Amino acid sequence: MPSPVLLAPQWIAPVAPLADASAAPRAAGVPHDVLTGHAVVVDGDRIAALLPLAEAQRRYPQAETMPLPDHLLVPGFVNLHAHAAMALLRGVGDDLPLHRWLHQRIWPLESRLVGAQFVRDGSMLAFHEMLLGGVTCVNDMYFFPEAAIEAAQRLGLRSVHGIIVIDFPSAYASDAGDYLRKGLDLRDRMRDEPLVDFCLAPHAPYTVTDEVLRRIATLSRELGLSIHTHVHETREEVEASVARHGMRPLERLSALGVVGPELIAVHAVHVSDSDLRLLADSGASVAHCPHSNLKLASGIAPAARMHELGIGVGIGTDGSASNNRLDLLAEARTAALLAKGHSGNAEAWPAARTLRAMTLDAARALGMDDRIGSIEPGKQADLVAIDLSGAELAPVYDPVSQLIYGCGREHIQHVWVAGTHVVRKRQLRNDTVRFEIAEVVGRTALWHNRVGEILSGQV
Amino acid sequence: MPSPVLLAPQWIAPVAPLADASAAPRAAGVPHDVLTGHAVVVDGDRIAALLPLAEAQRRYPQAETMPLPDHLLVPGFVNLHAHAAMALLRGVGDDLPLHRWLHQRIWPLESRLVGAQFVRDGSMLAFHEMLLGGVTCVNDMYFFPEAAIEAAQRLGLRSVHGIIVIDFPSAYASDAGDYLRKGLDLRDRMRDEPLVDFCLAPHAPYTVTDEVLRRIATLSRELGLSIHTHVHETREEVEASVARHGMRPLERLSALGVVGPELIAVHAVHVSDSDLRLLADSGASVAHCPHSNLKLASGIAPAARMHELGIGVGIGTDGSASNNRLDLLAEARTAALLAKGHSGNAEAWPAARTLRAMTLDAARALGMDDRIGSIEPGKQADLVAIDLSGAELAPVYDPVSQLIYGCGREHIQHVWVAGTHVVRKRQLRNDTVRFEIAEVVGRTALWHNRVGEILSGQV
Repeated sequence: MPSPVLLAPQWIAPVAPLADASAAPRAAGVPHDVLTGHAVVVDGDRIAALLPLAEAQRRYPQAETMPLPDHLLVPGFVNLHAHAAMALLRGVGDDLPLHRWLHQRIWPLESRLVGAQFVRDGSMLAFHEMLLGGVTCVNDMYFFPEAAIEAAQRLGLRSVHGIIVIDFPSAYASDAGDYLRKGLDLRDRMRDEPLVDFCLAPHAPYTVTDEVLRRIATLSRELGLSIHTHVHETREEVEASVARHGMRPLERLSALGVVGPELIAVHAVHVSDSDLRLLADSGASVAHCPHSNLKLASGIAPAARMHELGIGVGIGTDGSASNNRLDLLAEARTAALLAKGHSGNAEAWPAARTLRAMTLDAARALGMDDRIGSIEPGKQADLVAIDLSGAELAPVYDPVSQLIYGCGREHIQHVWVAGTHVVRKRQLRNDTVRFEIAEVVGRTALWHNRVGEILSGQV
Repeated sequence: MPSPVLLAPQWIAPVAPLADASAAPRAAGVPHDVLTGHAVVVDGDRIAALLPLAEAQRRYPQAETMPLPDHLLVPGFVNLHAHAAMALLRGVGDDLPLHRWLHQRIWPLESRLVGAQFVRDGSMLAFHEMLLGGVTCVNDMYFFPEAAIEAAQRLGLRSVHGIIVIDFPSAYASDAGDYLRKGLDLRDRMRDEPLVDFCLAPHAPYTVTDEVLRRIATLSRELGLSIHTHVHETREEVEASVARHGMRPLERLSALGVVGPELIAVHAVHVSDSDLRLLADSGASVAHCPHSNLKLASGIAPAARMHELGIGVGIGTDGSASNNRLDLLAEARTAALLAKGHSGNAEAWPAARTLRAMTLDAARALGMDDRIGSIEPGKQADLVAIDLSGAELAPVYDPVSQLIYGCGREHIQHVWVAGTHVVRKRQLRNDTVRFEIAEVVGRTALWHNRVGEILSGQV
C-alpha cells in the first residue's frame, strides 16, 4: 500500500458545488473559487483531503509532497459524447455536407470496416489523444464496446460505454434485442471493473422504435442507468419526426418515458423554447458538441439559454469524423466563446462556469457526481495539472480564465485517473502502452489503404 | 554568402493562386493542391525554386538538404489584425460585456500604462507567441509603433505597423495631425528595414473625423499604403453612424474615398448585403477576427457570404485583451467551422481555401502578395513546417485538411522568415532573444502588480 501523495500546485480550482461558479465578473487577482497555498492529498484511488499545505504536511507526515509550481490543478475533464473508434476515419469526409458525408463516406466505410480490431485500434488512438488532453472520463458510443473497453483499460482511462441500440443490423448485432442483450451481457461481465461504467445508448429517436425506447426507459429505471442519445441535431430530423409521429423528437421521447434526469441529450441544436423547458423541468442534461455541430453545418446550440434555464450542460468532442481534434479544452473554449457570440451576452458561460460544464456538470449527467467531477475529499482522484508558466500565458490575472481562454492541451503536464499518475510531463507514464500506441499508429497506414480502396470502389 | 538550402518535406501546400483552392470535396488521398516528393530551394531571403527533389538536388549540387519527414510545408501565416502590446492585459477583462470591458478595464488601464516600455514588453510577448504559432507577418495597430518594431526586429518577425490615428490624445500623440506626423516620420526612418512595412490606421470611423479620413485617403493613394481600420464591429456602431451621419459607417468611408482595394476592413460583423457588395465591388479586404467577435459578444461575421461574393478575407487574432490566445491556426479552424455552422453550408470555407485566407489572401489585403503569401520562386522565404507524425493526427487522409481541422500550434516545428530559420523544433533559435523573452516574462509580475493597483484604485 503506497503512502499518500500531497499534490502542491500553485492554484487549485476544486469546482465544488458550493463555490458560486456562476459569479461572472471577477476582479483582477485570484478569484474566490481558486485556492492557493493548498494541497490535495491523494490516497490510493481517492482524494483524502484538500487542506492548506502546512496542515496537510502535519496531518500526513509520511506523505511525499509533489510540488507543482506555476501549475493549476483541476478535476479531470469529462468528455460527455464520443465515438472513439472513428479516429481511424479522422478527416475522411472533411468539408462535405451531412448527407454526402454520411452516404458517401461514413456509412459505406463503417459497413466495410467495423469490427473488434477497428474499434480497438481507433479507440486506442482516440483515448490516447483524450487522456493527454486532460480527459479522465469518456462517455463513448460505438459498436463492439468490449474492444473500446480493452483500449480504455490499457490506457488507464475511466470510461462509460453506451449499450448501443440501433434499428439496423451491423457486424456487431442483428436487431434491437440483440444489441441490448450483448450490451447488458457485457455490463454483467464488467461488473467488477472499477473504471468501467455503462449507460443505455439508443442511437437516436429516428433509428429506434417506440417499443424499444419504452423498454430502454424501463431498463434505465430498473438498473439505474443513464440514457445517452442523439437528439435535435438537425432541422430535418425535427421536421421528419413531426411529419411521421406528429411530435417533435423530444416530445416523443418524453411520451415514451425517456426524458428525465437520466437523459443525456446529445447536440440539442434545433430546440424550441418548449423543448428547452421540457429538458429543464425534467432535470435532463445536454451533451454540447459545438465543433461537430459547426463542422457538419448543423447549427449552433443555444447554450447560453440552457444555462439560464438551469439545464446541466456537459461538453463532448463527438467522433473524429466530425471533429478531427478530440480536444475537450478547445471544445470548451469554443463553447464559452460561442455562447457569448451567439446570445449577444459577453457574460454568458464565464470561465469558471465553463470549467464546471466540462467536469462536474458532465459527471452529474452521467449520474457519477458522487464519485467524480470535483476535487472533494472522498471522491476519486481524477486530476489534471496545467502548467501556466509559458510566455504565451503571461501574465496570469486569473488562472481559471487563462485555462479556458488561453491554454491549449499542450499545457497539460500531468493527469491522474483514480489516483494513478497516467500522464507525466505530457507523456504516457507506462512505456509498454506508449509502445503499443506507436504500433497502432503504424497500423493506421493499413487502415488508410483499406479506406482508399473502398472509396475508390476497388474492393 | 551561405549556399542554398533544400527543404524536403513530405508534403508542400504552395497556395499558388493558380491552384484551384476553392475545389471543396477532395477524394481520400493526397489532393491536387499538395505536392509530394518536391523541395523548396531557399537562397538568402528568397525562394529560388520549387522543384521535384531529385531535380532540385541536380540543379543545386552545393545545397544542403534538410529532410522533413512527416512534415507539411506551407507559406508563413499572416496575422491580419493585432494589437500586440495588449498581451500585458491578457485576461484582464474576461467575461465582461463590451461597455464595462472598455470603460472599467481597457481604457483606464491603457491611459495609465501605455508607453514605450509597455509596448515593447507586450509586443515581445505577443510576437513571440505568434512566431512560435507560425505567424511570419503581423499587421499591428497600436501606440508607440517604434517600440513594437523594436520587438519584431529582435524576434526576426516581418511586421506591418499602422500609422495610427485617433481623435483623442494619448501618451503617444496629441491630435490627429500629431499621430499622422509621428507615424509618417517613423516610416521614413524605417525605409531601409526589409522586414518592416507600414499602413495607415485610422482607429475606426467613429473615432476619426471626416476631414482626417479624407486626408488618409489621399495619403493612401500618394504613398501606396493600405488602410487598416475597425468597421461594423457592433450593431451600436452602425446605428450610431446612421443617427449621426445619416449613413452606415462603410457608406461614409466610401463617400470619403476610403473604400477601395487598399482598405482592410477589420471585423465587418454587422454588415448588410449592400455593405458586402460595396466591399466586393471596391476590391476591399476583410480582416476576420472570429474569437474576438465571439468573446466580446459582438456577433458572427458572415464569412461564407464574403467568400461567395469574392471578397478577400484574411484572419486576425485581434489583441490579447479580447482573445487571450494569439493563435492564428486556432483562429483559422474557428473561422472555417463557424463559416459552415453559421451559413448552414458544410462546404463553406473548405480547408485549402482557409489556408489561402491565412496566407495569400491576407498578403493581398496588405498589398504584399508580390512578396509573400505563397510558395513561389522569387517570393520571400516565409515558411512554416508542421509535423503530422503524432498519434493524435493519424491517419492523414489529407494533410491540408489535417492542418486546419486537426493540428494545433504545438505541431509547428520550424518557422522561417525571409530565409532565416527563426524557430527550430518549437524554440527560438536565437539564445539571446530566448533569454530576453524570459526577462520580459519576469517583468510581467511588475505589470500585473501595476494593473492590480490601478483597478483597485490604489494609485
